[in-house]
Amino acid sequence: MKVSAQQLYKLLTEEYDLIGKTGKINFTLKDLTISIESRDTVGNLLQDWLVQWMKREKISFYVNPSSQTFPDIYLDIDYKKKNLLEIKTFDFDRGAGFDLANFESYCGSLLTHAYRLDSDYLILAYKMKGAEITIENLWLKKIWEIAGGSNTYPIKVQEKKQVIYNLRPINWYSERSTFKAFNTKEAFLKALNETRYQYSKTHHDNSHWLKNVLKNYAEHTGTILKIE
Amino acid sequence: MKVSAQQLYKLLTEEYDLIGKTGKINFTLKDLTISIESRDTVGNLLQDWLVQWMKREKISFYVNPSSQTFPDIYLDIDYKKKNLLEIKTFDFDRGAGFDLANFESYCGSLLTHAYRLDSDYLILAYKMKGAEITIENLWLKKIWEIAGGSNTYPIKVQEKKQVIYNLRPINWYSERSTFKAFNTKEAFLKALNETRYQYSKTHHDNSHWLKNVLKNYAEHTGTILKIE
Repeated sequence: MKVSAQQLYKLLTEEYDLIGKTGKINFTLKDLTISIESRDTVGNLLQDWLVQWMKREKISFYVNPSSQTFPDIYLDIDYKKKNLLEIKTFDFDRGAGFDLANFESYCGSLLTHAYRLDSDYLILAYKMKGAEITIENLWLKKIWEIAGGSNTYPIKVQEKKQVIYNLRPINWYSERSTFKAFNTKEAFLKALNETRYQYSKTHHDNSHWLKNVLKNYAEHTGTILKIE
Repeated sequence: MKVSAQQLYKLLTEEYDLIGKTGKINFTLKDLTISIESRDTVGNLLQDWLVQWMKREKISFYVNPSSQTFPDIYLDIDYKKKNLLEIKTFDFDRGAGFDLANFESYCGSLLTHAYRLDSDYLILAYKMKGAEITIENLWLKKIWEIAGGSNTYPIKVQEKKQVIYNLRPINWYSERSTFKAFNTKEAFLKALNETRYQYSKTHHDNSHWLKNVLKNYAEHTGTILKIE
Protein backbone atom coordinates (compact mmCIF):
# COMPACT_ATOMS: atom_id res chain seq x y z
CA MET A 1 0.00 0.00 0.00
CA LYS A 2 1.45 3.31 -1.11
CA VAL A 3 0.69 6.26 1.16
CA SER A 4 1.63 9.91 1.47
CA ALA A 5 2.82 11.30 4.78
CA GLN A 6 -0.66 12.81 5.26
CA GLN A 7 -2.32 9.42 4.76
CA LEU A 8 0.19 7.82 7.13
CA TYR A 9 -0.61 10.42 9.76
CA LYS A 10 -4.35 9.85 9.32
CA LEU A 11 -3.89 6.06 9.63
CA LEU A 12 -1.92 6.47 12.86
CA THR A 13 -4.21 9.00 14.50
CA GLU A 14 -7.75 8.47 13.19
CA GLU A 15 -7.78 4.78 12.27
CA TYR A 16 -5.25 3.31 14.68
CA ASP A 17 -6.09 5.90 17.38
CA LEU A 18 -2.57 5.98 18.79
CA ILE A 19 -2.72 9.23 20.80
CA GLY A 20 -3.13 8.51 24.51
CA LYS A 21 -2.23 4.83 24.22
CA THR A 22 0.35 3.36 26.58
CA GLY A 23 3.30 1.06 26.05
CA LYS A 24 5.87 -0.84 28.08
CA ILE A 25 9.43 -2.06 27.74
CA ASN A 26 9.86 -5.56 29.12
CA PHE A 27 12.90 -7.68 29.65
CA THR A 28 12.27 -11.41 29.81
CA LEU A 29 14.92 -13.92 30.88
CA LYS A 30 13.87 -17.50 31.51
CA ASP A 31 10.47 -17.29 33.25
CA LEU A 32 10.75 -13.81 34.77
CA THR A 33 9.69 -10.63 32.96
CA ILE A 34 10.51 -7.19 34.33
CA SER A 35 9.44 -3.74 33.16
CA ILE A 36 12.06 -1.13 32.39
CA GLU A 37 11.93 2.44 33.63
CA SER A 38 14.97 3.82 31.86
CA ARG A 39 14.23 6.85 29.73
CA ASP A 40 17.42 6.69 27.69
CA THR A 41 16.25 4.75 24.69
CA VAL A 42 12.50 5.42 24.54
CA GLY A 43 12.87 7.71 21.52
CA ASN A 44 14.71 5.07 19.51
CA LEU A 45 12.26 2.39 20.62
CA LEU A 46 9.31 4.43 19.37
CA GLN A 47 11.01 4.98 16.04
CA ASP A 48 11.72 1.24 15.70
CA TRP A 49 8.17 0.50 16.74
CA LEU A 50 6.75 2.86 14.10
CA VAL A 51 8.79 1.22 11.35
CA GLN A 52 7.54 -2.23 12.42
CA TRP A 53 3.98 -0.93 12.53
CA MET A 54 4.26 0.41 8.99
CA LYS A 55 5.51 -3.00 7.84
CA ARG A 56 2.61 -4.76 9.53
CA GLU A 57 0.16 -2.36 7.88
CA LYS A 58 1.69 -3.26 4.48
CA ILE A 59 2.65 0.34 3.85
CA SER A 60 5.33 0.53 1.19
CA PHE A 61 8.40 2.47 2.23
CA TYR A 62 12.16 2.32 2.25
CA VAL A 63 14.29 3.01 5.34
CA ASN A 64 17.47 4.92 4.62
CA PRO A 65 20.22 2.37 5.32
CA SER A 66 22.46 5.14 6.64
CA SER A 67 20.91 6.36 9.89
CA GLN A 68 23.23 9.39 9.81
CA THR A 69 21.98 10.85 6.55
CA PHE A 70 18.74 12.36 5.46
CA PRO A 71 15.91 11.29 5.23
CA ASP A 72 14.80 8.58 7.71
CA ILE A 73 12.22 7.12 5.33
CA TYR A 74 11.28 7.26 1.65
CA LEU A 75 7.51 6.84 1.31
CA ASP A 76 7.81 6.59 -2.46
CA ILE A 77 10.11 3.68 -3.24
CA ASP A 78 10.39 4.64 -6.93
CA TYR A 79 10.92 8.37 -6.74
CA LYS A 80 13.39 9.74 -4.21
CA LYS A 81 12.72 13.43 -4.56
CA LYS A 82 9.26 13.51 -3.02
CA ASN A 83 7.48 12.02 -0.02
CA LEU A 84 10.55 12.14 2.20
CA LEU A 85 9.81 11.51 5.86
CA GLU A 86 11.76 12.39 8.98
CA ILE A 87 10.71 10.85 12.30
CA LYS A 88 11.28 12.75 15.53
CA THR A 89 10.40 11.78 19.08
CA PHE A 90 10.60 13.69 22.34
CA ASP A 91 9.72 13.47 26.02
CA PHE A 92 6.81 15.90 26.41
CA ASP A 93 7.76 16.72 30.01
CA ARG A 94 11.21 17.83 28.89
CA GLY A 95 10.13 19.68 25.74
CA ALA A 96 11.06 19.34 22.09
CA GLY A 97 14.84 19.30 22.38
CA PHE A 98 15.58 17.26 19.26
CA ASP A 99 17.64 18.42 16.28
CA LEU A 100 15.88 19.27 13.04
CA ALA A 101 19.16 18.90 11.17
CA ASN A 102 22.85 19.69 11.39
CA PHE A 103 23.12 23.35 10.40
CA GLU A 104 25.99 23.13 7.92
CA SER A 105 24.98 19.80 6.36
CA TYR A 106 21.43 21.04 5.92
CA CYS A 107 22.51 24.29 4.24
CA GLY A 108 24.95 22.35 2.07
CA SER A 109 22.41 19.72 1.02
CA LEU A 110 19.89 22.37 -0.08
CA LEU A 111 22.36 23.42 -2.81
CA THR A 112 22.07 20.03 -4.54
CA HIS A 113 18.88 18.50 -3.04
CA ALA A 114 16.70 21.55 -2.53
CA TYR A 115 13.55 19.37 -2.64
CA ARG A 116 14.56 18.34 0.86
CA LEU A 117 12.81 21.54 1.95
CA ASP A 118 9.45 19.88 1.38
CA SER A 119 10.12 16.84 3.61
CA ASP A 120 7.53 15.88 6.17
CA TYR A 121 8.33 15.61 9.86
CA LEU A 122 6.30 13.03 11.78
CA ILE A 123 6.75 13.96 15.44
CA LEU A 124 5.79 11.74 18.39
CA ALA A 125 5.61 13.22 21.90
CA TYR A 126 5.58 10.73 24.75
CA LYS A 127 5.26 10.88 28.52
CA MET A 128 6.85 8.39 30.86
CA LYS A 129 5.56 7.46 34.31
CA GLY A 130 7.35 4.56 35.95
CA ALA A 131 7.56 1.88 33.30
CA GLU A 132 4.55 3.22 31.38
CA ILE A 133 5.00 5.20 28.20
CA THR A 134 2.07 7.23 26.88
CA ILE A 135 1.78 8.71 23.40
CA GLU A 136 0.94 12.30 24.30
CA ASN A 137 0.60 13.67 20.79
CA LEU A 138 1.47 13.21 17.12
CA TRP A 139 2.12 15.92 14.56
CA LEU A 140 2.89 16.02 10.86
CA LYS A 141 4.78 19.19 10.03
CA LYS A 142 6.90 20.92 7.44
CA ILE A 143 10.20 22.37 8.64
CA TRP A 144 8.92 25.97 8.38
CA GLU A 145 6.05 25.06 10.71
CA ILE A 146 8.40 24.02 13.54
CA ALA A 147 11.40 26.30 12.95
CA GLY A 148 11.26 29.90 14.13
CA GLY A 149 13.23 32.90 15.34
CA SER A 150 15.42 33.28 18.42
CA ASN A 151 17.18 35.94 20.46
CA THR A 152 20.60 35.22 19.03
CA TYR A 153 20.11 34.36 15.35
CA PRO A 154 17.22 34.89 12.88
CA ILE A 155 16.60 31.12 13.17
CA LYS A 156 16.72 28.99 16.31
CA VAL A 157 19.92 26.94 16.48
CA GLN A 158 21.96 25.04 19.00
CA GLU A 159 25.15 27.03 19.55
CA LYS A 160 28.17 26.26 21.75
CA LYS A 161 31.16 28.59 22.08
CA GLN A 162 30.12 30.59 19.02
CA VAL A 163 29.83 27.49 16.85
CA ILE A 164 26.41 26.62 15.39
CA TYR A 165 25.73 22.89 15.51
CA ASN A 166 22.08 22.16 14.79
CA LEU A 167 18.78 23.64 13.72
CA ARG A 168 16.36 23.31 16.61
CA PRO A 169 12.55 23.52 16.70
CA ILE A 170 10.66 26.23 18.53
CA ASN A 171 7.79 25.20 20.83
CA TRP A 172 5.26 25.02 17.99
CA TYR A 173 2.67 23.37 20.25
CA SER A 174 2.68 26.05 22.91
CA GLU A 175 0.66 29.23 22.52
CA ARG A 176 2.78 30.98 25.10
CA SER A 177 6.11 30.72 23.30
CA THR A 178 7.70 34.04 22.36
CA PHE A 179 8.97 32.93 18.97
CA LYS A 180 6.42 31.59 16.52
CA ALA A 181 7.04 29.32 13.55
CA PHE A 182 7.87 30.93 10.21
CA ASN A 183 4.86 29.28 8.58
CA THR A 184 6.11 29.83 5.02
CA LYS A 185 8.91 28.15 3.12
CA GLU A 186 10.10 31.55 1.97
CA ALA A 187 10.32 33.05 5.48
CA PHE A 188 12.24 29.98 6.62
CA LEU A 189 14.79 30.27 3.77
CA LYS A 190 15.14 34.00 4.36
CA ALA A 191 15.91 33.44 8.06
CA LEU A 192 18.38 30.67 7.22
CA ASN A 193 20.12 32.97 4.75
CA GLU A 194 20.25 35.84 7.24
CA THR A 195 21.67 33.49 9.86
CA ARG A 196 24.38 32.43 7.44
CA TYR A 197 25.18 36.10 6.85
CA GLN A 198 25.38 36.82 10.58
CA TYR A 199 27.41 33.70 11.44
CA SER A 200 31.17 34.19 11.01
CA LYS A 201 31.83 30.73 9.57
CA THR A 202 29.37 31.14 6.68
CA HIS A 203 29.46 34.94 6.26
CA HIS A 204 31.93 34.83 3.34
CA ASP A 205 29.92 32.69 0.90
CA ASN A 206 26.57 34.18 1.73
CA SER A 207 25.88 35.98 -1.53
CA HIS A 208 25.67 32.80 -3.54
CA TRP A 209 23.99 30.37 -1.20
CA LEU A 210 20.34 31.50 -1.38
CA LYS A 211 20.50 32.14 -5.13
CA ASN A 212 21.84 28.63 -5.74
CA VAL A 213 19.30 26.99 -3.44
CA LEU A 214 16.43 28.71 -5.28
CA LYS A 215 17.92 27.69 -8.63
CA ASN A 216 18.26 24.07 -7.52
CA TYR A 217 14.74 24.06 -6.12
CA ALA A 218 13.35 25.36 -9.43
CA GLU A 219 15.29 22.73 -11.39
CA HIS A 220 14.00 19.87 -9.24
CA THR A 221 10.42 20.95 -8.62
CA GLY A 222 9.60 23.36 -11.42
CA THR A 223 8.49 25.91 -8.84
CA ILE A 224 10.10 29.34 -8.62
CA LEU A 225 10.26 30.67 -5.07
CA LYS A 226 10.38 34.44 -4.60
CA ILE A 227 12.13 35.88 -1.54
CA GLU A 228 12.19 39.67 -1.00
CA MET B 1 14.95 -16.42 53.24
CA LYS B 2 18.40 -15.35 54.34
CA VAL B 3 21.24 -16.43 52.07
CA SER B 4 24.96 -15.89 51.75
CA ALA B 5 26.50 -14.89 48.42
CA GLN B 6 27.61 -18.52 48.00
CA GLN B 7 24.07 -19.78 48.49
CA LEU B 8 22.73 -17.14 46.10
CA TYR B 9 25.25 -18.24 43.48
CA LYS B 10 24.27 -21.88 43.95
CA LEU B 11 20.56 -21.02 43.62
CA LEU B 12 21.18 -19.13 40.39
CA THR B 13 23.44 -21.68 38.75
CA GLU B 14 22.54 -25.13 40.09
CA GLU B 15 18.86 -24.77 41.02
CA TYR B 16 17.67 -22.11 38.58
CA ASP B 17 20.13 -23.23 35.88
CA LEU B 18 20.61 -19.75 34.45
CA ILE B 19 23.82 -20.25 32.45
CA GLY B 20 23.07 -20.60 28.74
CA LYS B 21 19.49 -19.31 29.05
CA THR B 22 18.31 -16.60 26.66
CA GLY B 23 16.34 -13.41 27.15
CA LYS B 24 14.70 -10.67 25.11
CA ILE B 25 13.87 -7.00 25.43
CA ASN B 26 10.42 -6.22 24.05
CA PHE B 27 8.63 -2.96 23.54
CA THR B 28 4.84 -3.20 23.39
CA LEU B 29 2.62 -0.31 22.32
CA LYS B 30 -1.06 -0.98 21.72
CA ASP B 31 -1.21 -4.37 19.98
CA LEU B 32 2.26 -4.46 18.44
CA THR B 33 5.33 -5.84 20.22
CA ILE B 34 8.84 -5.41 18.85
CA SER B 35 12.17 -6.84 20.02
CA ILE B 36 15.05 -4.51 20.77
CA GLU B 37 18.58 -5.05 19.53
CA SER B 38 20.30 -2.15 21.27
CA ARG B 39 23.25 -3.20 23.41
CA ASP B 40 23.45 0.00 25.43
CA THR B 41 21.42 -0.97 28.45
CA VAL B 42 21.67 -4.76 28.62
CA GLY B 43 24.00 -4.62 31.64
CA ASN B 44 21.58 -2.48 33.64
CA LEU B 45 18.65 -4.64 32.54
CA LEU B 46 20.37 -7.78 33.81
CA GLN B 47 21.10 -6.11 37.14
CA ASP B 48 17.45 -5.01 37.47
CA TRP B 49 16.33 -8.46 36.45
CA LEU B 50 18.53 -10.11 39.09
CA VAL B 51 17.12 -7.90 41.84
CA GLN B 52 13.56 -8.76 40.77
CA TRP B 53 14.45 -12.44 40.68
CA MET B 54 15.83 -12.28 44.22
CA LYS B 55 12.56 -10.66 45.35
CA ARG B 56 10.51 -13.37 43.68
CA GLU B 57 12.63 -16.05 45.35
CA LYS B 58 11.90 -14.41 48.74
CA ILE B 59 15.58 -13.84 49.36
CA SER B 60 16.06 -11.17 52.00
CA PHE B 61 18.34 -8.34 50.93
CA TYR B 62 18.59 -4.62 50.89
CA VAL B 63 19.52 -2.58 47.79
CA ASN B 64 21.78 0.37 48.50
CA PRO B 65 19.55 3.37 47.78
CA SER B 66 22.53 5.29 46.45
CA SER B 67 23.58 3.61 43.21
CA GLN B 68 26.85 5.57 43.29
CA THR B 69 28.16 4.18 46.57
CA PHE B 70 29.33 0.78 47.66
CA PRO B 71 27.92 -1.89 47.91
CA ASP B 72 25.12 -2.69 45.45
CA ILE B 73 23.36 -5.09 47.82
CA TYR B 74 23.40 -6.03 51.51
CA LEU B 75 22.58 -9.72 51.86
CA ASP B 76 22.35 -9.37 55.63
CA ILE B 77 19.71 -6.76 56.38
CA ASP B 78 20.70 -6.57 60.07
CA TYR B 79 24.46 -6.46 59.89
CA LYS B 80 26.10 -4.17 57.34
CA LYS B 81 29.71 -5.25 57.73
CA LYS B 82 29.38 -8.71 56.19
CA ASN B 83 27.70 -10.32 53.20
CA LEU B 84 28.18 -7.31 50.97
CA LEU B 85 27.46 -7.98 47.31
CA GLU B 86 28.55 -6.15 44.18
CA ILE B 87 26.91 -7.05 40.87
CA LYS B 88 28.88 -6.70 37.64
CA THR B 89 27.79 -7.49 34.10
CA PHE B 90 29.70 -7.51 30.85
CA ASP B 91 29.39 -8.39 27.17
CA PHE B 92 31.49 -11.55 26.79
CA ASP B 93 32.42 -10.71 23.19
CA ARG B 94 33.89 -7.39 24.29
CA GLY B 95 35.61 -8.66 27.45
CA ALA B 96 35.38 -7.69 31.09
CA GLY B 97 35.78 -3.93 30.79
CA PHE B 98 33.84 -2.95 33.90
CA ASP B 99 35.23 -1.03 36.88
CA LEU B 100 35.88 -2.87 40.13
CA ALA B 101 35.87 0.45 41.99
CA ASN B 102 37.07 4.02 41.75
CA PHE B 103 40.74 3.88 42.73
CA GLU B 104 40.83 6.76 45.20
CA SER B 105 37.41 6.15 46.77
CA TYR B 106 38.24 2.49 47.23
CA CYS B 107 41.59 3.19 48.90
CA GLY B 108 39.94 5.85 51.07
CA SER B 109 37.05 3.63 52.12
CA LEU B 110 39.39 0.83 53.24
CA LEU B 111 40.70 3.18 55.96
CA THR B 112 37.31 3.26 57.69
CA HIS B 113 35.43 0.28 56.19
CA ALA B 114 38.23 -2.24 55.69
CA TYR B 115 35.69 -5.11 55.83
CA ARG B 116 34.79 -4.00 52.29
CA LEU B 117 37.78 -6.11 51.23
CA ASP B 118 35.74 -9.28 51.81
CA SER B 119 32.80 -8.26 49.58
CA ASP B 120 31.55 -10.73 47.03
CA TYR B 121 31.38 -9.94 43.34
CA LEU B 122 28.60 -11.66 41.41
CA ILE B 123 29.57 -11.35 37.75
CA LEU B 124 27.26 -12.08 34.80
CA ALA B 125 28.70 -12.43 31.31
CA TYR B 126 26.21 -12.19 28.44
CA LYS B 127 26.32 -12.54 24.68
CA MET B 128 24.00 -10.72 22.34
CA LYS B 129 22.94 -11.91 18.91
CA GLY B 130 20.22 -9.85 17.25
CA ALA B 131 17.57 -9.32 19.91
CA GLU B 132 18.59 -12.42 21.85
CA ILE B 133 20.63 -12.18 25.02
CA THR B 134 22.35 -15.31 26.34
CA ILE B 135 23.79 -15.75 29.83
CA GLU B 136 27.27 -16.96 28.93
CA ASN B 137 28.60 -17.46 32.44
CA LEU B 138 28.23 -16.51 36.10
CA TRP B 139 31.01 -16.16 38.66
CA LEU B 140 31.19 -15.39 42.34
CA LYS B 141 34.56 -13.86 43.17
CA LYS B 142 36.51 -11.94 45.77
CA ILE B 143 38.31 -8.83 44.55
CA TRP B 144 41.75 -10.50 44.82
CA GLU B 145 40.53 -13.27 42.50
CA ILE B 146 39.74 -10.84 39.66
CA ALA B 147 42.36 -8.10 40.24
CA GLY B 148 45.93 -8.65 39.06
CA GLY B 149 49.12 -7.03 37.85
CA SER B 150 49.76 -4.91 34.77
CA ASN B 151 52.61 -3.47 32.74
CA THR B 152 52.27 0.02 34.15
CA TYR B 153 51.37 -0.39 37.83
CA PRO B 154 51.55 -3.30 40.28
CA ILE B 155 47.74 -3.49 40.00
CA LYS B 156 45.63 -3.14 36.86
CA VAL B 157 43.96 0.26 36.67
CA GLN B 158 42.29 2.50 34.14
CA GLU B 159 44.63 5.45 33.58
CA LYS B 160 44.21 8.52 31.39
CA LYS B 161 46.85 11.21 31.03
CA GLN B 162 48.74 9.97 34.11
CA VAL B 163 45.60 10.04 36.28
CA ILE B 164 44.36 6.75 37.75
CA TYR B 165 40.58 6.49 37.62
CA ASN B 166 39.44 2.96 38.35
CA LEU B 167 40.53 -0.48 39.44
CA ARG B 168 39.95 -2.87 36.55
CA PRO B 169 39.72 -6.67 36.48
CA ILE B 170 42.20 -8.85 34.64
CA ASN B 171 40.86 -11.60 32.38
CA TRP B 172 40.40 -14.08 35.22
CA TYR B 173 38.46 -16.48 32.96
CA SER B 174 41.14 -16.79 30.29
CA GLU B 175 44.07 -19.13 30.70
CA ARG B 176 46.05 -17.24 28.11
CA SER B 177 46.16 -13.88 29.92
CA THR B 178 49.65 -12.67 30.85
CA PHE B 179 48.67 -11.30 34.24
CA LYS B 180 47.06 -13.68 36.69
CA ALA B 181 44.86 -12.79 39.66
CA PHE B 182 46.57 -12.12 43.00
CA ASN B 183 44.58 -14.94 44.64
CA THR B 184 45.25 -13.74 48.20
CA LYS B 185 43.90 -10.75 50.09
CA GLU B 186 47.42 -9.94 51.25
CA ALA B 187 48.94 -9.90 47.74
CA PHE B 188 46.09 -7.66 46.59
CA LEU B 189 46.67 -5.16 49.42
CA LYS B 190 50.41 -5.21 48.84
CA ALA B 191 49.95 -4.40 45.12
CA LEU B 192 47.47 -1.65 45.97
CA ASN B 193 49.97 -0.17 48.43
CA GLU B 194 52.83 -0.35 45.94
CA THR B 195 50.67 1.30 43.29
CA ARG B 196 49.91 4.12 45.72
CA TYR B 197 53.65 4.50 46.31
CA GLN B 198 54.40 4.61 42.57
CA TYR B 199 51.51 6.96 41.70
CA SER B 200 52.42 10.64 42.12
CA LYS B 201 49.06 11.69 43.55
CA THR B 202 49.19 9.21 46.48
CA HIS B 203 52.98 8.88 46.88
CA HIS B 204 53.14 11.39 49.78
CA ASP B 205 50.78 9.65 52.24
CA ASN B 206 51.86 6.16 51.43
CA SER B 207 53.59 5.26 54.66
CA HIS B 208 50.40 5.41 56.69
CA TRP B 209 47.81 4.01 54.36
CA LEU B 210 48.51 0.26 54.56
CA LYS B 211 49.15 0.36 58.30
CA ASN B 212 45.82 2.09 58.90
CA VAL B 213 43.91 -0.26 56.60
CA LEU B 214 45.30 -3.29 58.45
CA LYS B 215 44.44 -1.68 61.79
CA ASN B 216 40.88 -0.94 60.68
CA TYR B 217 40.48 -4.45 59.29
CA ALA B 218 41.60 -5.97 62.62
CA GLU B 219 39.20 -3.72 64.55
CA HIS B 220 36.21 -4.69 62.41
CA THR B 221 36.88 -8.36 61.80
CA GLY B 222 39.18 -9.46 64.62
CA THR B 223 41.61 -10.86 62.04
CA ILE B 224 45.19 -9.65 61.82
CA LEU B 225 46.55 -9.65 58.27
CA LYS B 226 50.31 -9.95 57.82
CA ILE B 227 51.95 -8.38 54.76
CA GLU B 228 55.70 -8.76 54.21
